[in-house]
Amino acid sequence: MARTTGSDGEKTEAAIREAAVNLIARFGYEAMSMRQLAAEVGVQAAALYRYFPTKEDLLYTLMREHMEGLAKTWEAARPANAGPAQRLSAYVENHIAFHIERRQATHVSNMELRSLSPERLTQILRMRTAYEKELRAILRDGAEADAFSIDDTGLTAMALIQMMTGVIVWFRPGERLSIAEVTATYLSMTMRLVGAASATAPRVFLDAQRTL
Amino acid sequence: MARTTGSDGEKTEAAIREAAVNLIARFGYEAMSMRQLAAEVGVQAAALYRYFPTKEDLLYTLMREHMEGLAKTWEAARPANAGPAQRLSAYVENHIAFHIERRQATHVSNMELRSLSPERLTQILRMRTAYEKELRAILRDGAEADAFSIDDTGLTAMALIQMMTGVIVWFRPGERLSIAEVTATYLSMTMRLVGAASATAPRVFLDAQRTL
Repeated sequence: MARTTGSDGEKTEAAIREAAVNLIARFGYEAMSMRQLAAEVGVQAAALYRYFPTKEDLLYTLMREHMEGLAKTWEAARPANAGPAQRLSAYVENHIAFHIERRQATHVSNMELRSLSPERLTQILRMRTAYEKELRAILRDGAEADAFSIDDTGLTAMALIQMMTGVIVWFRPGERLSIAEVTATYLSMTMRLVGAASATAPRVFLDAQRTL
Repeated sequence: MARTTGSDGEKTEAAIREAAVNLIARFGYEAMSMRQLAAEVGVQAAALYRYFPTKEDLLYTLMREHMEGLAKTWEAARPANAGPAQRLSAYVENHIAFHIERRQATHVSNMELRSLSPERLTQILRMRTAYEKELRAILRDGAEADAFSIDDTGLTAMALIQMMTGVIVWFRPGERLSIAEVTATYLSMTMRLVGAASATAPRVFLDAQRTL
């Protein structure tokens, strides 16, 4: 397939990926048919197969690109020559920003792992592990430098990632809090959770009455 | 339907619910057919409909019973006349114990909300809100008594719940850590996250090298 930027082929492929994320997030991967997807995009089913020979190729592409995108944004956001607290802040900010912008793709990536072939599942899990390893390294460096106080680096990394990714479950743009406010609160919770020496508790967004 | 304890009908219904949780966790609700479920249980499809007139009745029953079970275990675990820190500990312990024992049902409850009718979705979300409200009340009481230091009660409650429920994603019984060890580490992270006055950092389970 020709990969000219903005070519018709590329636009069609992007439209397929976008429609697939929407349909899978709404109905689930197993329930989505390639015929349904083709109708949504407005192409013949045969055209789909030129881009994605099997439905699983499509799912794998969505998940791989999601993880590649996450690794790439972190690569760009990672501060050079910074201390553990600054690196942890950058990790939290990038993680929340990335996932809030990709709520549906995140749901698909988290929910549909069961439908990948074993080899491809291994590929995706390897990418996840590499990304999580970056967080564990920050936590370990912080603990060794006595900047953080951590019981278990592995558990703390998982706890933080699930806490942060969980934002997509309830966050809706334009409601009570902006992304910046949500990120600031999560940053402050993260710093306290890792026992960061500098962790403070600014009671800026206190809103005890609200029912989420 | 007769509801005698241990009657054949009750056993069949329990077998249907158990098989349904397994199938939905594996393939997704939309992809599971009542025919497939009947085959798994070893009954005629017609028999299923005596217990669950529609597939959505079945899904709703699974989700309702999951939330009722959670509310009931918390009701039993909730300490009377205790301070915020002790109440928070009890909440964390009960939440983790409940979900670790019901990994598949938790996946189903979290992933398949999209397939409920609007009225039933409202019912389930109402039960969730009531359960989360208990946590918000504990956090608010702790903040008011200066036992906790919290920026935003609503966000902190969501962060804690997602962090704790996330245990089911990676925890497998019989691996590195016991449920008691996992719970102790999550308890300590929770207490630090809420800025509990008594939050300490026992470096008991430090295992910085392990790749989760």
